[in-house]
Amino acid sequence: MAPIANGRLLFNSVPGDLPEPGKTTVYDVSETIDPDTVALDGGFFIKLLEISVDSYMKGRMHATSHESIIPSFVLGQPLHSYGIGIVLRSENPHVKVGDHLHGPLEHAEYSVKKDLTGSGILQNPLKLPWSTFLGVLGRPVCKGKTAFMAWKQFSRPKQGETVFVTTGAGSVGSLVIQFAKMDGLKVIASAGSDEKVRYMKELGADVAFNYKAVKTTDVLRKEGPIDIFWDNVGGATLDAALEAANINARFIECGMTTEYTNGGDIPVRKLLQIIIRSITLHGFFVDRLVPKWNEDFMKIVPPLLTSGELKYREEEFDGLEVVGDALLALLKGKNIGKVVVHVAKD
Amino acid sequence: MAPIANGRLLFNSVPGDLPEPGKTTVYDVSETIDPDTVALDGGFFIKLLEISVDSYMKGRMHATSHESIIPSFVLGQPLHSYGIGIVLRSENPHVKVGDHLHGPLEHAEYSVKKDLTGSGILQNPLKLPWSTFLGVLGRPVCKGKTAFMAWKQFSRPKQGETVFVTTGAGSVGSLVIQFAKMDGLKVIASAGSDEKVRYMKELGADVAFNYKAVKTTDVLRKEGPIDIFWDNVGGATLDAALEAANINARFIECGMTTEYTNGGDIPVRKLLQIIIRSITLHGFFVDRLVPKWNEDFMKIVPPLLTSGELKYREEEFDGLEVVGDALLALLKGKNIGKVVVHVAKD
Repeated sequence: MAPIANGRLLFNSVPGDLPEPGKTTVYDVSETIDPDTVALDGGFFIKLLEISVDSYMKGRMHATSHESIIPSFVLGQPLHSYGIGIVLRSENPHVKVGDHLHGPLEHAEYSVKKDLTGSGILQNPLKLPWSTFLGVLGRPVCKGKTAFMAWKQFSRPKQGETVFVTTGAGSVGSLVIQFAKMDGLKVIASAGSDEKVRYMKELGADVAFNYKAVKTTDVLRKEGPIDIFWDNVGGATLDAALEAANINARFIECGMTTEYTNGGDIPVRKLLQIIIRSITLHGFFVDRLVPKWNEDFMKIVPPLLTSGELKYREEEFDGLEVVGDALLALLKGKNIGKVVVHVAKD
Repeated sequence: MAPIANGRLLFNSVPGDLPEPGKTTVYDVSETIDPDTVALDGGFFIKLLEISVDSYMKGRMHATSHESIIPSFVLGQPLHSYGIGIVLRSENPHVKVGDHLHGPLEHAEYSVKKDLTGSGILQNPLKLPWSTFLGVLGRPVCKGKTAFMAWKQFSRPKQGETVFVTTGAGSVGSLVIQFAKMDGLKVIASAGSDEKVRYMKELGADVAFNYKAVKTTDVLRKEGPIDIFWDNVGGATLDAALEAANINARFIECGMTTEYTNGGDIPVRKLLQIIIRSITLHGFFVDRLVPKWNEDFMKIVPPLLTSGELKYREEEFDGLEVVGDALLALLKGKNIGKVVVHVAKD
């Protein structure tokens, strides 16, 4: 086989508040690769099938000199995120041609991986769409586990309590709404469009509102106080939740979208409330919860999906060249459900 | 007995960043009271002996229209705070003349209390100074229990970990330093004067610094990362701690002095770190910890005091008329140890 073009999505420049597809990321086809002869050095060669797009990726688009625990993408190099690929060649005894690999993958149509670090081979006896494994059934960083495990670990729900879920039409929030309803809670949920409000009501939210149309503080004053806050936003929304919290409230700090899209260091001004109201704020990374909760997750969630009791949506994009657009849409709140990019078929 | 003047410390006007003794609080001697004939209506008549002065009192000096879970002092009425008084007359069968009462008391040299709500009768077989019961051995809001119980509840210390204690020469911080050393931790402690730095070193702090002379961020960068943060300050100091935190750090949010002295709503900008580093922030009120920890406290702490293993200081003021000055000194960080005002002798 002759060398073929290997499309890659490169980190090209540090964005301001929002990424600009074509500028901060560029799709590059200048590299060629020969699938038959590229050196594997004991590793394996994969074709990328599916890519997960997540808001935290914006947080990795900084200058490499920037101090952070989360390393930046490297300028001039491909982005990477959670993905699924199929193995085309292998020199690794644990990896066979035709295996489907999930793990952090480079945004390149073809790539060589040295070993299975951080990755695994997927089993898919039910022939579910591969992208399912990026979302509701996915590995850490992915959405089903984030929602399920952090809810189990931190929410301590009591029947009749009230939870406020932000980005409730998103890949995580939509599941949190449903888990909260299963636990007998009153659910207040917010999102940024009327279409999303309708979706959140379908999922069972008792109160669903468009935060662009009504004030979060007004809704919480009327419908609160809140015992649990699922935070995907930070900033002024977190302030509103702090001022609407009940004594002993639990705040589950899953994400802070305002941080990613407004240059960071967004002020939170009402933190004194955590003392006044004995609030606990739980920051977490889901991978640190997996050892404790994985067995429960695998037992409980897949049957809920197959029975249809747990609803789940994907926002689908096609082609590696639109990853930048998919991320921008996500950060602008255009999606309903998990954002996935279908890169290629098996 | 003829009527006598009853000195009272009145809340006179809402302060700005700092209270102004003589303006925001005034000592008033215009009221008279006749100890022999004042109506008790089934209650009891007490002479005030000791008053606790605490930074949160500034937080109660707002206009009564101000929305808050902590009610404001009432303009034109006496302040109140934790204190000790002796009973001079009683119509309550549970309260005898000569009893020493502890509880929230009006800042009036003489007052009538209706019942024992929130209060109790003190036993003092060892004839310790009465002010001890405002501080290290005191009831909720007071210092020994705050330090001991929140440390037990939230710190989860592991030998060799590092804790950063703010206001380490204060009534709570000075005890936290010592509890942390007993648990085998490296202790970094900050305060606002060289004299306090010397005191914190005496208490066992491994690293003690004057935050007015060196930058907190510099010290934490060199001596961190920190596994536990004892926060009495909030604001920029909390930001510094967030950026110096280890994975899975525990932040014990005891107070936010910057909120009380800078008009409130002080921004915290680095909260994204709680997600990145899986930090938990625990806000608390000590009275909610008492049921769980009181028995341990009474078993462990008094022997440590009598043996001298646990060191404790008071900053003493004399006379109800200087309560405003005592609070100002506390908020300006002039004190070492627990601030008490001796109002009268038995």
